[in-house]
Amino acid sequence: MARWEPDARGRMTRAALDLYAEQGFEQTTTAQIARRAGVTERTYFRHFADKREVLFDGSHELEAAVASAITAAPDTADPLDVVGDAVATAVAALEERRELAARRAAVVAATPHLQERELLKLAALRDAAAAALRARGVPEPDASMVAEAGVGAFRVGFDAWIASGQSRPVGDEVRSALAALRAQARG
Amino acid sequence: MARWEPDARGRMTRAALDLYAEQGFEQTTTAQIARRAGVTERTYFRHFADKREVLFDGSHELEAAVASAITAAPDTADPLDVVGDAVATAVAALEERRELAARRAAVVAATPHLQERELLKLAALRDAAAAALRARGVPEPDASMVAEAGVGAFRVGFDAWIASGQSRPVGDEVRSALAALRAQARG
Repeated sequence: MARWEPDARGRMTRAALDLYAEQGFEQTTTAQIARRAGVTERTYFRHFADKREVLFDGSHELEAAVASAITAAPDTADPLDVVGDAVATAVAALEERRELAARRAAVVAATPHLQERELLKLAALRDAAAAALRARGVPEPDASMVAEAGVGAFRVGFDAWIASGQSRPVGDEVRSALAALRAQARG
Repeated sequence: MARWEPDARGRMTRAALDLYAEQGFEQTTTAQIARRAGVTERTYFRHFADKREVLFDGSHELEAAVASAITAAPDTADPLDVVGDAVATAVAALEERRELAARRAAVVAATPHLQERELLKLAALRDAAAAALRARGVPEPDASMVAEAGVGAFRVGFDAWIASGQSRPVGDEVRSALAALRAQARG
């Protein structure tokens, strides 16, 4: 049992990741995850609704952080910059967990059920960003399209960060992706 | 049994849509869909892998149409215009099935399992568009970001088309969404 990570949620996430990588998502039960994390199955279900949610711990916090940053930006700020800054700042928390993030991304990419859940989380992040933009007075369809671009930059920047051998910060990769879209849009 | 639609696939799609709307996705079986469509369950499974795929008939064709249009665009065309034109042209086929598209969208929005499958289809469309752009020589992260914008415009334009009481063509809504992003990106 891994004791080096003190929090139960972190232990469960890491146990699930290990088991999904070792024996596959379908073959893994919540009982196995709980056992490896050193908790009861009841404790598991107090924290996570199912076998998928355990890999998406923190997604509500990410969504809230992005929405708050959009809300807190200066009134005069450019909407695309506002979303880009909000996402780049929020993902910076991943910086110190790159190896874990890379292993998690590989497991998700290999498991359609996890891909679907990830896409649902990204859609929720996009909707939260669009709502925060509308609250700033950004009209539609602008708010939705800027939110799409911001979440797109999150995905593309994150993938580039995981794929690259370089140690460029994840936030910089997100900003580069958005800058590329801006350059393309300028024609 | 609805006989006014001659093709079996169309009958199955419409039967599934009716049953999901009447009694919910979870409560509906493939046997019920097959019966209402006037086919055997065996025929159902020859056409669709599961209870979800029946609502995504034509998604491969859409993906292929978008990729071909990107490939066929003039060498000098602007990538964002190329993707926008490809998507706007491909969705125009929905124009004559607006009432069906609206009912389908309502069922998908009410059913997380269908939302997830829809997001997976949109991700496949995005990946196909990005690959076609790379084949034209568009570098990364530009190709992925332009593809994100194009598929974002598809979603946002489609939703606006369904939501609006006006009879503005769906392709125009897609183009407006992309134009809004372009204006935002120009600052």
